[in-house]
Amino acid sequence: MQHDHSDSIQRLKIIEGHIRGIQRMLENDQYCIDVIRQIQAVQAALNKISVKLLDGHLNSCVLTAIQGEDAEERTRVLKEITEMFETTTKV
Amino acid sequence: MQHDHSDSIQRLKIIEGHIRGIQRMLENDQYCIDVIRQIQAVQAALNKISVKLLDGHLNSCVLTAIQGEDAEERTRVLKEITEMFETTTKV
Amino acid sequence: MQHDHSDSIQRLKIIEGHIRGIQRMLENDQYCIDVIRQIQAVQAALNKISVKLLDGHLNSCVLTAIQGEDAEERTRVLKEITEMFETTTKV
Amino acid sequence: MQHDHSDSIQRLKIIEGHIRGIQRMLENDQYCIDVIRQIQAVQAALNKISVKLLDGHLNSCVLTAIQGEDAEERTRVLKEITEMFETTTKV
Repeated sequence: MQHDHSDSIQRLKIIEGHIRGIQRMLENDQYCIDVIRQIQAVQAALNKISVKLLDGHLNSCVLTAIQGEDAEERTRVLKEITEMFETTTKV
Repeated sequence: MQHDHSDSIQRLKIIEGHIRGIQRMLENDQYCIDVIRQIQAVQAALNKISVKLLDGHLNSCVLTAIQGEDAEERTRVLKEITEMFETTTKV
Repeated sequence: MQHDHSDSIQRLKIIEGHIRGIQRMLENDQYCIDVIRQIQAVQAALNKISVKLLDGHLNSCVLTAIQGEDAEERTRVLKEITEMFETTTKV
Repeated sequence: MQHDHSDSIQRLKIIEGHIRGIQRMLENDQYCIDVIRQIQAVQAALNKISVKLLDGHLNSCVLTAIQGEDAEERTRVLKEITEMFETTTKV
């Protein structure tokens, strides 16, 4: 299934620059709490990409698999969703 | 759709007792870090229930909705999954 | 060190009632996504208690330990803070 | 206060490469779930850096502030720790 990921790729390029900025903050020995806040901002930006990818995935691969004939494939795509949720909720 | 939630209900009863235990820890002025650790244990237990419920939901309501004829309903159940993932990943 | 935990204990009592409410939702086979949302609400409420406890802990035990003479105790209280942060950030 | 951040900077360089790899995965339209898993791996790596920075911060700036004479500064550094914990635990 073909997706248009140009928006996510663009966001990743921005995140790449953000991470280089954090490297410079550490090289300049900036205040640790400010650095950690920037890392948290990167993680929030990464979460947005994950949510976008999941949304696309559900409305394409998952939809097709569930409407398809292959019962094993159906089980597999649903299991992946549960596992991803499990990973993100681990305390 | 009828689910068997007896296992989750049983787990919630245990969590209820766990929370009463945390109340007693606070009444006895126990070490704060130990109390926070117990709260984290409760949250891990709650996460397990959420994962179990999501798994059941995907394999029943979501499956039925997606295999059904109602396009709006399909969109709705998938949107709910994305939103839940969004909530859990918010930094 | 004596703390006043009456507010946190009160919040835990409310959470206990909330969890019994979730049990009833499951007994009545309510919509799984709504149940998961209620579990997430409980977790947000638990987080607020943890933050409150940590705040009290930092301004009492941690403060006293760091201003005290016992170097091992200083190391220990700081290590506990790092470990707690590590637990909460685990992806 | 001078820190040695060379290890964290090195880790950030690796993460930068990891993020470029994720861009390529999207350009090649690889399986979304695999991409999300890689994003989660980057987030776990970022968490390790945050934990390391916090640990250094507690054992330098926070220690010095708390042992110092400036009561406002003491309050400020402790408040920052609570706020960071609050951010990471937000459901």
